[in-house]
Amino acid sequence: MAKADVAIIMGSQSDWPTMKHAADVLDELGIAYDARIVSAHRTPDRMYDFAKSAKSEGFKVIIAGAGGAAHLPGMVAALTTLPVFGVPVESRALSGQDSLLSIVQMPGGIPVGTLAIGKAGATNAALLAAAVLALMNPDIDKALEAFRAGRTAAVTERPVNDPA
Amino acid sequence: MAKADVAIIMGSQSDWPTMKHAADVLDELGIAYDARIVSAHRTPDRMYDFAKSAKSEGFKVIIAGAGGAAHLPGMVAALTTLPVFGVPVESRALSGQDSLLSIVQMPGGIPVGTLAIGKAGATNAALLAAAVLALMNPDIDKALEAFRAGRTAAVTERPVNDPA
Amino acid sequence: MAKADVAIIMGSQSDWPTMKHAADVLDELGIAYDARIVSAHRTPDRMYDFAKSAKSEGFKVIIAGAGGAAHLPGMVAALTTLPVFGVPVESRALSGQDSLLSIVQMPGGIPVGTLAIGKAGATNAALLAAAVLALMNPDIDKALEAFRAGRTAAVTERPVNDPA
Amino acid sequence: MAKADVAIIMGSQSDWPTMKHAADVLDELGIAYDARIVSAHRTPDRMYDFAKSAKSEGFKVIIAGAGGAAHLPGMVAALTTLPVFGVPVESRALSGQDSLLSIVQMPGGIPVGTLAIGKAGATNAALLAAAVLALMNPDIDKALEAFRAGRTAAVTERPVNDPA
Amino acid sequence: MAKADVAIIMGSQSDWPTMKHAADVLDELGIAYDARIVSAHRTPDRMYDFAKSAKSEGFKVIIAGAGGAAHLPGMVAALTTLPVFGVPVESRALSGQDSLLSIVQMPGGIPVGTLAIGKAGATNAALLAAAVLALMNPDIDKALEAFRAGRTAAVTERPVNDPA
Amino acid sequence: MAKADVAIIMGSQSDWPTMKHAADVLDELGIAYDARIVSAHRTPDRMYDFAKSAKSEGFKVIIAGAGGAAHLPGMVAALTTLPVFGVPVESRALSGQDSLLSIVQMPGGIPVGTLAIGKAGATNAALLAAAVLALMNPDIDKALEAFRAGRTAAVTERPVNDPA
Amino acid sequence: MAKADVAIIMGSQSDWPTMKHAADVLDELGIAYDARIVSAHRTPDRMYDFAKSAKSEGFKVIIAGAGGAAHLPGMVAALTTLPVFGVPVESRALSGQDSLLSIVQMPGGIPVGTLAIGKAGATNAALLAAAVLALMNPDIDKALEAFRAGRTAAVTERPVNDPA
Amino acid sequence: MAKADVAIIMGSQSDWPTMKHAADVLDELGIAYDARIVSAHRTPDRMYDFAKSAKSEGFKVIIAGAGGAAHLPGMVAALTTLPVFGVPVESRALSGQDSLLSIVQMPGGIPVGTLAIGKAGATNAALLAAAVLALMNPDIDKALEAFRAGRTAAVTERPVNDPA
Repeated sequence: MAKADVAIIMGSQSDWPTMKHAADVLDELGIAYDARIVSAHRTPDRMYDFAKSAKSEGFKVIIAGAGGAAHLPGMVAALTTLPVFGVPVESRALSGQDSLLSIVQMPGGIPVGTLAIGKAGATNAALLAAAVLALMNPDIDKALEAFRAGRTAAVTERPVNDPA
Repeated sequence: MAKADVAIIMGSQSDWPTMKHAADVLDELGIAYDARIVSAHRTPDRMYDFAKSAKSEGFKVIIAGAGGAAHLPGMVAALTTLPVFGVPVESRALSGQDSLLSIVQMPGGIPVGTLAIGKAGATNAALLAAAVLALMNPDIDKALEAFRAGRTAAVTERPVNDPA
Repeated sequence: MAKADVAIIMGSQSDWPTMKHAADVLDELGIAYDARIVSAHRTPDRMYDFAKSAKSEGFKVIIAGAGGAAHLPGMVAALTTLPVFGVPVESRALSGQDSLLSIVQMPGGIPVGTLAIGKAGATNAALLAAAVLALMNPDIDKALEAFRAGRTAAVTERPVNDPA
Repeated sequence: MAKADVAIIMGSQSDWPTMKHAADVLDELGIAYDARIVSAHRTPDRMYDFAKSAKSEGFKVIIAGAGGAAHLPGMVAALTTLPVFGVPVESRALSGQDSLLSIVQMPGGIPVGTLAIGKAGATNAALLAAAVLALMNPDIDKALEAFRAGRTAAVTERPVNDPA
Repeated sequence: MAKADVAIIMGSQSDWPTMKHAADVLDELGIAYDARIVSAHRTPDRMYDFAKSAKSEGFKVIIAGAGGAAHLPGMVAALTTLPVFGVPVESRALSGQDSLLSIVQMPGGIPVGTLAIGKAGATNAALLAAAVLALMNPDIDKALEAFRAGRTAAVTERPVNDPA
Repeated sequence: MAKADVAIIMGSQSDWPTMKHAADVLDELGIAYDARIVSAHRTPDRMYDFAKSAKSEGFKVIIAGAGGAAHLPGMVAALTTLPVFGVPVESRALSGQDSLLSIVQMPGGIPVGTLAIGKAGATNAALLAAAVLALMNPDIDKALEAFRAGRTAAVTERPVNDPA
Repeated sequence: MAKADVAIIMGSQSDWPTMKHAADVLDELGIAYDARIVSAHRTPDRMYDFAKSAKSEGFKVIIAGAGGAAHLPGMVAALTTLPVFGVPVESRALSGQDSLLSIVQMPGGIPVGTLAIGKAGATNAALLAAAVLALMNPDIDKALEAFRAGRTAAVTERPVNDPA
Repeated sequence: MAKADVAIIMGSQSDWPTMKHAADVLDELGIAYDARIVSAHRTPDRMYDFAKSAKSEGFKVIIAGAGGAAHLPGMVAALTTLPVFGVPVESRALSGQDSLLSIVQMPGGIPVGTLAIGKAGATNAALLAAAVLALMNPDIDKALEAFRAGRTAAVTERPVNDPA
């Protein structure tokens, strides 16, 4: 039933405050997405079903966020040839260093394009998905260029002592 | 068709020089095992099939070795309730620190008993499997106690300058 | 005097808020345990006595939590052939990285099955103990499968913006 | 003058033994690429010119490899909205940990999809580029699926003691 | 229009609470500076223009602060031969370890003199700039010596239990 | 039966090439020592006996070297109030970072004075033992001062291009 | 003028909340000490004078605490042959990992017996100093044994759910 | 007696193969230097004398290389207000991570401009010294610009498969 180009999946409800930043950027760029909780460890069957049918469901890009021994992005990438972008969610004890290594150090053969730990990574996963979709869609290309220009324009010349 | 109590699985042929140490210990203790290559990333279907049928196949303990973004132990643990012991195989750039964190930092709910990086870890995974089986099998218990006693007896009192 | 199958030991009272999660899981699964403070450094004799008599006391699995230069799991493992599962407790300065390495990097010969740092690790140590006991006890096996199924069922399909 | 869909750029000739693995995969998949040395630090003007004209030159995806304070992927990403995939090249003292963090920890707004350190990362950057191009090109999609299937088929069931 | 000897640049307004300590020291030493927000990633053109004209504008030393994949100091150093001193700003997840490595691990050919993470680094970047300027300006030399002597004199002989 | 003031103990024969440097320094300073292999993990009883009787045996200082999950120094320190100096032996995968943290991060109550990883640490453990003994023995004090002076005198003024 | 056996020195007033734990233990053991602020970086002359005269002043052991690029313990050790015990004080950004490495990784020739990061390390530096002094002073030996026994006795058998 | 503008100092003869790269660059730029072995730990008096008289000797910039607990750059910086640039020399066990942190994490008040670990850092320390001297000497400025231009020109457009 997917009309969405992008799937945002995450290992647990607790990843949503991070992954919501990906959703917000896609909203701002006018890109439809579908956000789901898909746990590699707690719902492996759901993950298999999701990953194996993602292409036929019509998804073009998958954004996957996870923390700790973050297996979700890599396992989904093993089950589909769609581009998968991984977001390491900050973990409690190790601040996301475990999540980062678990996502980025994939063996040759199964790629996961990995973004920064936390909010910046979620934001950028959405922008990277948009960059991919922009190759096929001039409207998204224009929206992306405008987004970028807006960010550039927002950088003031001088630091302000007490920004409120 | 398994008559083996222990499955030794690994992500790739290149893990075998490490995981062979587990096989050697099980041989020494008289414990039957079955060694297979099961890649979470390259053969996800084989992994699913293996993990889901491991219990009915008669395996009692699973030893899983993997390197880098080492998802194999955790994914197998997500698909069976058998005890899974993970061995981080040394990786090229990060010396197995990535393997270790990817294996040990599992979320609450899906346990992987993790051993040391490399050869020591493979050796100990076999000993830990034996310790579990020994609870049900006095012969293994005796073999394990003997193995331990042999190791203790082998520690000389004095360091030797030129051991050859 | 032990009727308990599982011993939960920890280096100090301050480890209890972490290790209590192991106790809670065992309670939920209907597995009897005995929780004790046994410090490798402050009460080495108590540790010796505990570890050397653990088998004859009737324990089948030992869960040991400790932080910093966490010697408790490894020393207990050196003094018994029972399966020992180690839980790295978060340390103040190094967030449990010291605890993790001190527990997991055991030399070949003396295994400690190591779980994740902190609460997730304590939870999983209990589940791993249960997985071992389930090999000998169909009730525990059933309870474990039910626990797992309950966790799977609890994963909602969609993230909720403001979970309370 | 680019007819190539993919640009493979790298900071120095010494990165080529790593980045050549990306070229090899693209060759295998029948994807045209253009490999150039573009140093963020030694040839910043060349980098600016490359990045600013990459879109109009007809490139669809940029693969950028760099080591140490690896600024190339991130700076190129700052100058184009094309998808940029970064490959951390192993550095001498820090084994690529510096390269990895310098590439992956981009601020929100400028994404770099980061792959593993070294050869595996270069291989996967090419596969990820192919995955993106496959969205627009059924031949590449077929080639990619075949590549994946070939890799799966190549995984033997049993480890071999002396693979030569 | 620069009359200032020192440029203090930073990647974002959020770096100012750190970089302000550099400004405060320069104020105390009577050295004119110009503080600007120049983002390598969001305003790459502004950065190019700044760096390429810094010498002709009359700047003698550049202090550049940035966090995460901190490319600003190194990119500015690639575009000018003026001395560039880099300040790693504390990052959220990795506490500035990423910032430090991204700034300090520059390849041979393009130097960035890197200071400590955070406030101490900003303070010291200003003192190092002053040390450079003092080579040409006896007043600054005197001010620097006095600053140093004042700091020495402020170290009390005995620790005080409750400093308020 | 000990006439030696210093015990040099180590976890395994493989630590001797490192620990021999401690013996060499003690030889040079004319301090009697007793070198033994005492494994915390493989010979826990030998370790207990050694540590509990070290004081009555007449030892004044204990030097303990170990690698990986290096429990020997800390466990010996838990069983005696003699000063214990620990030497982290370089480990294979983690280069001694695990050994260092396992030795140095002792909880409050049980001190181990920890030296550098490897040869430098073994050398310095002997010098620190000598510094302690020198407080009671003017000959050792003189020997230590002479050793130090000799080292100082050996530092040439200029680097030599091809030292052979 | 020193009557104290132990000097407790630290790089700054801000180290006192940590180093005070060393003073408290020495107080409890009845050992006289002298606590001073001696900064390697801000008061190098004071440090030279202190270290060079420490032996003639009558000090027997030096405890030195410092944070960040913690040079104080090592520099004092370079200027005296008295035993020096170093305490890494927790640093802001790197949690004391920088302090630990700066103190412990001394080159062969100049030993610093290093304790744990923070409060535990300060406590243990005092206990180690006491262990050294106990070799010459039976009262301190007795006090130390009593301290240790008290600590052992204070370890309860069972964890308490809500310690207040 | 110094006619040299730059002092290159290092903690030991073993640092010379690294620090020679600084000398080579200064030679190439026509800048006079004086290379000396000055060990903070083994020759603290030589270090004090050097640092305290460096300014009056006529040095304008100090380049200091050291490894492990690398105290030399920071201690020299504490004893002079001349600009000090530090080069972390690769250490055996920790690959220079200890050297880097010991040099860069200086407290506020005493700056050391730190370069990359190893050869690149030594090269860049010389270039940074040249950048400082160029502010007062148009010949050096010209030489530096030419050096930079030569490096830029040497970057070929295309990677070569078998550079020999």
